[in-house]
Amino acid sequence: MTPWAERLAGVHGVLLDISGVLYDSGAGGGAAIAGSVEAVARLKQSRLKVRFCTNESQKSRGELVGLLRRLGFDISEGEVTAPAPAACQILKERGLRPHLLIHDGVRSEFNDIDISNPNCVVIADAGEGFSYQNMNKAFQVLMELENPVLISLGKGRYYKEASGLMLDVGAYMKALEYACGVEAEVVGKPSPEFFKSALRAIRVEAHQAIMIGDDIMGDVGGAQQCGMRALQVRTGKFRPSDEHHPEVKADGYVDNLAEAVDLLLQHTDK
Amino acid sequence: MTPWAERLAGVHGVLLDISGVLYDSGAGGGAAIAGSVEAVARLKQSRLKVRFCTNESQKSRGELVGLLRRLGFDISEGEVTAPAPAACQILKERGLRPHLLIHDGVRSEFNDIDISNPNCVVIADAGEGFSYQNMNKAFQVLMELENPVLISLGKGRYYKEASGLMLDVGAYMKALEYACGVEAEVVGKPSPEFFKSALRAIRVEAHQAIMIGDDIMGDVGGAQQCGMRALQVRTGKFRPSDEHHPEVKADGYVDNLAEAVDLLLQHTDK
Repeated sequence: MTPWAERLAGVHGVLLDISGVLYDSGAGGGAAIAGSVEAVARLKQSRLKVRFCTNESQKSRGELVGLLRRLGFDISEGEVTAPAPAACQILKERGLRPHLLIHDGVRSEFNDIDISNPNCVVIADAGEGFSYQNMNKAFQVLMELENPVLISLGKGRYYKEASGLMLDVGAYMKALEYACGVEAEVVGKPSPEFFKSALRAIRVEAHQAIMIGDDIMGDVGGAQQCGMRALQVRTGKFRPSDEHHPEVKADGYVDNLAEAVDLLLQHTDK
Repeated sequence: MTPWAERLAGVHGVLLDISGVLYDSGAGGGAAIAGSVEAVARLKQSRLKVRFCTNESQKSRGELVGLLRRLGFDISEGEVTAPAPAACQILKERGLRPHLLIHDGVRSEFNDIDISNPNCVVIADAGEGFSYQNMNKAFQVLMELENPVLISLGKGRYYKEASGLMLDVGAYMKALEYACGVEAEVVGKPSPEFFKSALRAIRVEAHQAIMIGDDIMGDVGGAQQCGMRALQVRTGKFRPSDEHHPEVKADGYVDNLAEAVDLLLQHTDK
């Protein structure tokens, strides 16, 4: 295998996934993954540019950052690229007024968005909010539009909580796509536009950046499609079969964020 | 356009969809569509063979027939081809023990099926039963199986109730297909096997049969793929855009079942 020095050559910027890399979500707010608090601190003390790039859409950035800070992480809102604010920008640019099928925890991100007389639907990981009644309402709104627009915050298949695997927004996005005969616009990973906006925030080119995530498709495959390199951590939703994925091969597999940061600091911070 | 006499030549058997053709479901059991009670009676008095072919899977056949009889229809259980009994036959033949994600109204059809230690999932139009919790449970059962089998009673996108369009089982089938990376086996229209079982029951060949339905894909497209002819009624879930559907063209469009039966009796019952 190619030596790490070669695989990491020229990396100036690092995008970090949050859930499954920094911490595992779950009851009581979740728990930091061993070594990740220190790893983030060391990374931020290095010459590498760092940006957090998450598909979290059950919480507002404020809530997410508050939770992470309580777990000991050095992180602020301005360092986080997340789907809800990106979606709000799109909604404003295009004069779209959404019907929101989202989790209550993220609703505050849409506070200054006009939601009267909706001309599109925004779907996010609503968790228990994915009731038949709520799904049917979103469906009816789309069916009444001449040009139905469906915006999905991510398209994950599932994620892992302490209690087991949980259906993610992608499944419900597919349900609405099929019922309405539309194709959703995905805001969040693996959308190239989303990765690019995270890179713009730290002024790093894709070929000089590396993504670190636990999702072989959304993080690793998405970043590579965008011209970045990507490492997969063996934490969060990682499954051993990911290392033999038929379509996506990471630029490296590491046990956790701490190992990734060791390698980055050893081979890039010269 | 080809004259009706030509389009209907050689028809010996008629398959009738129920919801949206005979009646509109909804609060209080629903309401017969104007002229349909008499149309069914006239059809059954003719020389044409008649079979009801429905994807109804919120109710047992007994319940459905009881409701239709109260609305005035001449119909008995033995005349109805429906997905739940067809699925039970498949489950028994293949030794499958289902986890059931179905409506309580149809549960009695599965009374003699072993549902312990499930090795497959059966999904049907569960209506309000499509909660996040129930969907997640079905998802988790599939993810734990080495060879996940998902059987879906129909794959309709939506149906119409008095209160508006309602999401059908197909949307939720797609959600599970995407989340689990499986392809569902569909029992019900538009599965050719399902149409064929309805035709076998009245001993009519596909080229001598015509389907009458309100669903351009499930009824019309499905029947035509099976070698039958098909009329679409402008009742139930019919939408004007169906008459310009990019893929499916019915052998005729009629205002309602009464008009379809007028034409059939005029041009075939000689």
